[in-house]
Amino acid sequence: MSTSTFKAVILAGGSGERFWPLSTPERPKQFLRVFGGASLIRQAVSRLDGLVSPRDVFVVTTKSLVAATRKELPEVPKGNIVGEPMRRDTGAAVALGVGLATGGGDPVVGFFSSDQMVAKPKEFRKVVKKAVALARRRDAIVTIGIKPDYPATCFGYISLKTRAFVEKPDAEKAKKYVKAGYLWNAGMFIARASVFRGAFAAHAPALECLANIGGGARPIAPAKLARVYAALPKISFDYAVMEKAKNVEVVPGDFGWDDVGSFAAFDKYFPHDSRGNVREGPCTVVEAEGNICVARSARISLLGVKNLVVVTTPDAVLVADKSRLTDMKKLFKR
Amino acid sequence: MSTSTFKAVILAGGSGERFWPLSTPERPKQFLRVFGGASLIRQAVSRLDGLVSPRDVFVVTTKSLVAATRKELPEVPKGNIVGEPMRRDTGAAVALGVGLATGGGDPVVGFFSSDQMVAKPKEFRKVVKKAVALARRRDAIVTIGIKPDYPATCFGYISLKTRAFVEKPDAEKAKKYVKAGYLWNAGMFIARASVFRGAFAAHAPALECLANIGGGARPIAPAKLARVYAALPKISFDYAVMEKAKNVEVVPGDFGWDDVGSFAAFDKYFPHDSRGNVREGPCTVVEAEGNICVARSARISLLGVKNLVVVTTPDAVLVADKSRLTDMKKLFKR
Repeated sequence: MSTSTFKAVILAGGSGERFWPLSTPERPKQFLRVFGGASLIRQAVSRLDGLVSPRDVFVVTTKSLVAATRKELPEVPKGNIVGEPMRRDTGAAVALGVGLATGGGDPVVGFFSSDQMVAKPKEFRKVVKKAVALARRRDAIVTIGIKPDYPATCFGYISLKTRAFVEKPDAEKAKKYVKAGYLWNAGMFIARASVFRGAFAAHAPALECLANIGGGARPIAPAKLARVYAALPKISFDYAVMEKAKNVEVVPGDFGWDDVGSFAAFDKYFPHDSRGNVREGPCTVVEAEGNICVARSARISLLGVKNLVVVTTPDAVLVADKSRLTDMKKLFKR
Repeated sequence: MSTSTFKAVILAGGSGERFWPLSTPERPKQFLRVFGGASLIRQAVSRLDGLVSPRDVFVVTTKSLVAATRKELPEVPKGNIVGEPMRRDTGAAVALGVGLATGGGDPVVGFFSSDQMVAKPKEFRKVVKKAVALARRRDAIVTIGIKPDYPATCFGYISLKTRAFVEKPDAEKAKKYVKAGYLWNAGMFIARASVFRGAFAAHAPALECLANIGGGARPIAPAKLARVYAALPKISFDYAVMEKAKNVEVVPGDFGWDDVGSFAAFDKYFPHDSRGNVREGPCTVVEAEGNICVARSARISLLGVKNLVVVTTPDAVLVADKSRLTDMKKLFKR
């Protein structure tokens, strides 16, 4: 496979709520950096090493995050990192990515998230290579379906047989899906640019114009982009295209994928002390169990507490019950 | 009663552990100031208004706290605020207080703590007046016994009948004591200076020298005090004298006394929100119940947590289970 004909687009939106106060609207999840690791967006680009050269990496992010993203990815040409003038969900972001990445010719374009974890990057590259090869051969949108670890209710599923996309299920449905061999929809889509354009034309004509805009070498005027975006529908790529398209192929993957949905994921990825606490920074722990403790300002002392998430930054202190992390948004309504 | 013959000594040691990080070794409990109130030591002196003039108030504190104490009590003559060169428990502190407060003549000297709460100061003054009058008449150490609210295990008791002092009991004994009409030992002792001296001579001769030292007008040389202290036993006034003395009188008092032993006391003294949280400073509370939340640096956000003490200062963050506050010391052993 010649790398010149594969281009990668990283979708990097994010509101920064689920990892607040470590992440904020100004530094959302993709900038999350814990336990000495690289930021998630840095990891997302690095894990494509060998599949795509930096000049063929594109990033669609929020206007206000362009500068921070460029700093985080110095090897990616500045013009490849583009800020959306307003939030229009992933439908618009994918369409814009197709437009940016095309730049003449009909390359295979792959879409990846900026804020996921992949435990086995080698295996990941193998699967992506397979998907790219398939996308080159077929007039189809190839998606990578993740072998489920458990009946998750926080991901959409794809049927390997019918290639149908289904939304996030309730617990009961999730069990059925896993039993039936459905795979997790990890939001990775790979197709030739012309195939994406055809899919927009057929299923989401309002977004088609974006897929024809710009191109890496030819920057889009921000004023024009703002005008175009103002008129776009707010819709996800799954709803707008994938749930309707017939030409879908699924490549199964099993490479330790996770979308790092909340602080609870820290329990999965980082080492525990003998009482099941995960700690970063100066934390004193006395008879406390199962806590996630991240000290980014003063020392945290935990005494006799259980299953909490305690995070401090110079600007904020969060003390949450681990089982209530799905309610994080309620903190921001006040 | 002439105020010139009553002198008050405030005992102001304290290690600052139980209210850490609001209090610290450099600013122990008597400097605690919450919900806009005055510090506990400021309150301790103010509540003696009308019973004793500021020039007859003495403070025995730790050497390192003298400057801070003088700042807190500007009306008390500087020479009346004396720092112990090292910790020798309340036995030595009372003896030193007797020496300081005497300064010629045989005044009635009363000892009070610097870190207690009194909800009804008027009633308090009435009871102290009675105790002072009794001390003037009798060759006895008069103690104020507090009518128990509940069978506390964190206070010593005094039998009103036998005038015997008993140590902090277990839960079962505490119930018996309350049933038998025992009172709480609030650590308030009132007697003529000569009576205190006699008691030291009889029961704790090693401490007697201190009761004859100094006097407000005649400052003690720090080097001399350090030499004397180095040789003193570390023993409480209760053990050294009160448990042995026969000439003890008890005046019962009921003036909303509390020794503010831990953060749990905040529940007693400060207003709650509709879910039973006590808050000071910027605290966002979402579906959290029964917490004590004191924000002295960044905003604290509580999500779904129960019965915690969360305290932040620029230097430290404490997250403790309310039921584990008695284990605070364990945090400092690390």
